[in-house]
Amino acid sequence: MSSQQPLIAAIEAGGTKFVCGIGRGPHEILATHRIDTTTPEETLESVCRWFSKMKLEHGPFEAMGVGSFGPVDLNPKSESYGFITSTPKPGWQHTDVVTRLKHRFKVPVGFDTDVNAAVLGEYLWGAGQGIDPLVYITVGTGVGGGVLVNGQLLHGALHPEIGHLAVPPPVNSLAVQRDCQCPFHKSCVEGYVCGPSIAKRWGVRADTLPLEHPAWEEISDAMAHALMNICLTLSPKRIILGGGVMEQPQLIPLIRGKLMSHLNGYLLIPQLGKEIDQFVVSPGLGSRSGLLGSLALGRMALDQKITHS
Amino acid sequence: MSSQQPLIAAIEAGGTKFVCGIGRGPHEILATHRIDTTTPEETLESVCRWFSKMKLEHGPFEAMGVGSFGPVDLNPKSESYGFITSTPKPGWQHTDVVTRLKHRFKVPVGFDTDVNAAVLGEYLWGAGQGIDPLVYITVGTGVGGGVLVNGQLLHGALHPEIGHLAVPPPVNSLAVQRDCQCPFHKSCVEGYVCGPSIAKRWGVRADTLPLEHPAWEEISDAMAHALMNICLTLSPKRIILGGGVMEQPQLIPLIRGKLMSHLNGYLLIPQLGKEIDQFVVSPGLGSRSGLLGSLALGRMALDQKITHS
Repeated sequence: MSSQQPLIAAIEAGGTKFVCGIGRGPHEILATHRIDTTTPEETLESVCRWFSKMKLEHGPFEAMGVGSFGPVDLNPKSESYGFITSTPKPGWQHTDVVTRLKHRFKVPVGFDTDVNAAVLGEYLWGAGQGIDPLVYITVGTGVGGGVLVNGQLLHGALHPEIGHLAVPPPVNSLAVQRDCQCPFHKSCVEGYVCGPSIAKRWGVRADTLPLEHPAWEEISDAMAHALMNICLTLSPKRIILGGGVMEQPQLIPLIRGKLMSHLNGYLLIPQLGKEIDQFVVSPGLGSRSGLLGSLALGRMALDQKITHS
Repeated sequence: MSSQQPLIAAIEAGGTKFVCGIGRGPHEILATHRIDTTTPEETLESVCRWFSKMKLEHGPFEAMGVGSFGPVDLNPKSESYGFITSTPKPGWQHTDVVTRLKHRFKVPVGFDTDVNAAVLGEYLWGAGQGIDPLVYITVGTGVGGGVLVNGQLLHGALHPEIGHLAVPPPVNSLAVQRDCQCPFHKSCVEGYVCGPSIAKRWGVRADTLPLEHPAWEEISDAMAHALMNICLTLSPKRIILGGGVMEQPQLIPLIRGKLMSHLNGYLLIPQLGKEIDQFVVSPGLGSRSGLLGSLALGRMALDQKITHS
């Protein structure tokens, strides 16, 4: 029964806002709260104050889970484990998140990237239930991806950074290298498709571009190349596409078509043929993937494994 | 002790040759034998005859392991499990390998891609001992890659097919799409760097190109983009580069330099800085990665897990 699950404090820590929640599972969220991301000191203090208040209202929580913007240090043996590390976000470089929460609330703290939290949420309760390998990609202010493979979230040397996949220039892109807006790379998917890149390239916000605008062809072309490269490396059984830019309803069908056309019949699997509509999908949890996944990270910090309930 | 390990029949099944071996581990290979790849019937019958002879000489083996060219079906629930499936190799489409060996020798048969076998061999006994995630890439007649992650070989919807990663055109490549020799894709790494692609593009065999030839810049550029994309998806802790083309001694240092230059400081990890020489490396088992990995697949078929000894 849901009410027998432990009470967990969940934080989806983003570069624009921190979304906090307290609850026991997807059907039992007792309260949520949004805090603007300002300085680390101010933001994390607001987070702690809200959870202290929740403790008084709902009783003690048994663990916390944090899905954070990054890059983050996920190596438990590292001195900077639980830190946001080399982020371009001003003021947030080398910010210790986990130690602060542990000291304040004296409970286990689960910690991972925001997108690994989202893929975990979707795996447990959303559009990827029980599907392994599973990939979740968000396209918004930036592009990021979380990966669950062989029963665990993927970390490795760092963690996936799918937004910076190098891809061939989109078709019809006449002045290609000028158009990739990434400060690091000459031709990466984030540089072509994230919100600020679209705005800089076309002079208007993505959600104001009409359906027939050539931008969508370029965006779906670059996204399809990113998905192609994900298929060729991670061999996922499903890819979930979330984030603000992906809310344009024409995009997922365009990306499915271009993914098949880019691969050109090379991978003969149903997922890239008659089952493509179940292979590239929208999130099942809408905008709650990250928060619910963070709650699951808190559960995992209690029992150290992925459990569905 | 090595002599307490079970006797295993190992087959590295390639498009040019099948390499067979019988033994207990890397330091106890009793015999090996090379068979040219002709028709499935003739090749597999030669393989079976050799192992029957080995049984008489060395006693019964307890399991067989096969690392095969592909694509192959690795889904134990599929009707075509253990088959070579949609390979372009004439005559080999839809060839049942596992059932034939099981019927003939009545022992468990482990089965995976040749490159997954190679990554397993390198993980157990070679240049990637205990390193997870670990990637092995071969560059020769084709380009392929095997992946070990979270303690298991990566399968997923199919299996990794790293050779066909879409990458930006190599620098200095003036007539890019003409130069990618892949029959499926307009800009993939195999189409730029495999042996036949090099021969077609430059008119001579790779091993006859002088050190200062511009081909090496293009080859290392495309390979570095492939490695970049592998870092951004699989986040490996080491990448092993094997195969005939990689025997050119100048290539690995060139690829290391271009990998760091393509990533341009985005992933701040020691593997992509001062530890780059331990991150992109040659195989520790030389040309035996695939055969020894196939032996390990045989062991796994006996005990269903990866065991080091």
